[in-house]
Amino acid sequence: MRPFLLMFLLIFTMAGFPQEADSGNEDAKMVQKIFEECLVSGDTYHLLEHLCTEIGPRLSGSQGAADAVAWTRQVMSDYGFDRVFLQEVMVPHWERGAAESAVINPSKSGEKTELRMLAIGGSVPTPASGITAEIIEVMSLDDLEGLGEKAIKGKIVFFNRPFDQKVISTGAGYGGAVDQRTRGASAAARYGAAAVVIRSVTSAMDDNPHTGTLIYTEDLPRIPAGALGYQSADKLTERLKADPKTRLTLTINSQWFPDALSHNVVGELKGSERPDEIIAIGGHLDAWDVGEGAHDDGAGCMQAIMVLRTLQKLGIKPRHTLRAVMFMNEENGLRGGKRYADLAVENTEYHVFLLESDAGAFTPRGFGVNASDEVLEKLRSFVQYFDPNTVTHIRKGGGGADIGPLHRATGTPMAGLMVDTQRTFDYHHAETDLFENVNRRELELGTAAMAAFIYLIDKYGLAADGPQSE
Amino acid sequence: MRPFLLMFLLIFTMAGFPQEADSGNEDAKMVQKIFEECLVSGDTYHLLEHLCTEIGPRLSGSQGAADAVAWTRQVMSDYGFDRVFLQEVMVPHWERGAAESAVINPSKSGEKTELRMLAIGGSVPTPASGITAEIIEVMSLDDLEGLGEKAIKGKIVFFNRPFDQKVISTGAGYGGAVDQRTRGASAAARYGAAAVVIRSVTSAMDDNPHTGTLIYTEDLPRIPAGALGYQSADKLTERLKADPKTRLTLTINSQWFPDALSHNVVGELKGSERPDEIIAIGGHLDAWDVGEGAHDDGAGCMQAIMVLRTLQKLGIKPRHTLRAVMFMNEENGLRGGKRYADLAVENTEYHVFLLESDAGAFTPRGFGVNASDEVLEKLRSFVQYFDPNTVTHIRKGGGGADIGPLHRATGTPMAGLMVDTQRTFDYHHAETDLFENVNRRELELGTAAMAAFIYLIDKYGLAADGPQSE
Repeated sequence: MRPFLLMFLLIFTMAGFPQEADSGNEDAKMVQKIFEECLVSGDTYHLLEHLCTEIGPRLSGSQGAADAVAWTRQVMSDYGFDRVFLQEVMVPHWERGAAESAVINPSKSGEKTELRMLAIGGSVPTPASGITAEIIEVMSLDDLEGLGEKAIKGKIVFFNRPFDQKVISTGAGYGGAVDQRTRGASAAARYGAAAVVIRSVTSAMDDNPHTGTLIYTEDLPRIPAGALGYQSADKLTERLKADPKTRLTLTINSQWFPDALSHNVVGELKGSERPDEIIAIGGHLDAWDVGEGAHDDGAGCMQAIMVLRTLQKLGIKPRHTLRAVMFMNEENGLRGGKRYADLAVENTEYHVFLLESDAGAFTPRGFGVNASDEVLEKLRSFVQYFDPNTVTHIRKGGGGADIGPLHRATGTPMAGLMVDTQRTFDYHHAETDLFENVNRRELELGTAAMAAFIYLIDKYGLAADGPQSE
Repeated sequence: MRPFLLMFLLIFTMAGFPQEADSGNEDAKMVQKIFEECLVSGDTYHLLEHLCTEIGPRLSGSQGAADAVAWTRQVMSDYGFDRVFLQEVMVPHWERGAAESAVINPSKSGEKTELRMLAIGGSVPTPASGITAEIIEVMSLDDLEGLGEKAIKGKIVFFNRPFDQKVISTGAGYGGAVDQRTRGASAAARYGAAAVVIRSVTSAMDDNPHTGTLIYTEDLPRIPAGALGYQSADKLTERLKADPKTRLTLTINSQWFPDALSHNVVGELKGSERPDEIIAIGGHLDAWDVGEGAHDDGAGCMQAIMVLRTLQKLGIKPRHTLRAVMFMNEENGLRGGKRYADLAVENTEYHVFLLESDAGAFTPRGFGVNASDEVLEKLRSFVQYFDPNTVTHIRKGGGGADIGPLHRATGTPMAGLMVDTQRTFDYHHAETDLFENVNRRELELGTAAMAAFIYLIDKYGLAADGPQSE
């Protein structure tokens, strides 16, 4: 082999498992086996393909959500899990209806510009003929206060603050802009606005609009709200610079229905030594009604199932009872997570650990943990078993939306899978959250990281004994 | 904000720079500034867009390669680098010619199946009418020996060993299969084979064929060689199971030309304290003639330029002379890297450090370093300045093909940027190595990681003093 080929290979050949040389290290070998099993079988990927392409969108209350409940139940039964059951839960039921639209009204030169927009989830509709009004552009909720009712009344408020690109963790970029989506409508309604549009909360600079939920404040008028694609928001702000009197016609055809009956889906492997002590691994089965909910959070659900399935395939008998939980209704209500917590308390179930994956099917980098310092220290001792191209650190703080209610009710330690989030908000809540935008190996590494983490927690527990920290 | 939204944000809000709290830490602040500058400006991405979409393919000796030389020289001049110059180098010149083809000849049912195939780079052509022959499928070069000339003579040898999916570092998967591409043709020619086809060396399971270079052994007949798409290889192996007498018609229209004059392109920021001590940062400017060479290695070249440009923009005056080097002809000859080394020795230039990026525009995870343990230890002390979602470790071993010759000639410490390689070999040497498959933030994080690393090396040198290891 020529030197340059050899060198090329060296660049790519990473350190590998540090324990490979130590043949006595059973845990390191098992962790490696778990990773190999996931990478070779691709089973998480195959499950996700079915969920995304055969079932697809599955917002709470929809037929897709019901189909996803039935199918995941069947999958776990077919795998021969010890117990598979449903938990009934009433969920909000909102539908987008016919496609929405946002059109900039003719400029002096007669140009009429169609913008790309999605109604924000939960938005009330406009009249069928739409709402046409002048636009007032602001960069924050606080800006409204300075402007006051005189400037805002009857107008469409355009919240235009972008996602902050400069932070490395995209969650912070998202967190810094999302209040415009969640609270913008009511903030504008307080001053008599007719409707709101926002610049989509996304790291991408394409023109795909990103939906998500909004929260209407009680006792304020509920006004329609839409999210514009990034480039559409650029167009609108440019037009406003040229003509501050520019008008927008907004049409949203959404509808609210009565709460619907839905379900959490739970699959269980019974613990061999401590069957009454439960480790729950979850994702949320509902997904926005655009795209396929591939990253958010089909991936997390399929990973939860495959954590149990992988240990089962490798002949590992868990000491504790392991549960894969498909939570319903994370996106617009969190009813499934609350219901799971209520039932656990009601039935005096004892959960020892909670894990969720809801940041997308990207390469794992670590776990974020909400627990005592003692537990944190114990979990940090497990990092030594992971290839440095996967889990490198355990961070204090984190968890998951769906496992939060039980954590808060009982103090059960919880963790969230941390992934490389650079692409998360390119797809999040958009029509591009598709199976074709998931990389098989990245998804499977996430499953493997979770399965290995659970294998170690199940084996050693969370108290300050077991394998030594390095 | 509702609890579930708060929790959601917590999942994504990573640890951030550990030094943020320490307002006295100038280096940590500068590293953060470098990352912010890259993420916000997106300048590496904008340069790469031009290289990929305006210039595109640029195999050694092609017009594209000449255009890329002229353009990168202009870019660095326009940035006002202290010195921009070319180094002449004679390079191999091979052209693919008209599109190649591989057709499975009619089965008993009359079916004729077109496979997706690319000629392997450097392959000799078939006759214009193609080569039609029976196929002999093998899984390794060693298999040929067992079969011998009687079984192989006059046949098309089909090397079908796949990329090993089970390893986490995809470089090892690639390394485990690539000998079929580089040495398969001559290995088969030794036993009288008419031609070879291989299963493309890729982590993807789509049908895009992946080219790359081959090496003909002296004194053996040079026979044509092609790489089949993964799914096409599946089709061929299935057909062979059904009918071992299946014949394939292979047509390749390539041509070898005399060596051509080309250039390395070098841009320089003069050192303020040690102008005669050079730190060189490189990528290779040539790329295969399919796709746009976006990840391989347009990204590395644009990153090298932007390392210098970013420090320049932030007003950092380097102590050593910094060079961005666009090496020519990594893919099929490494002439540029060898020429750079020869000239450095000839001109008694003193290089103190070499860095290359050639693993794709993916999120950085660390650096692989070829140097003494003392230097390694010093470089490890810099990891503390990086956000844990970027550089987490310095590995012993690594570097880059283009900087290898100078490293070997002089012992200069060298390093390669290590990235998340899960997608590297999905695109590597394929028509899909396109700008549209590069994520802006992942690319920019790579630039920033390199710029920050060089900033620290330039400031503290490589001897065992300077900032304390943690």
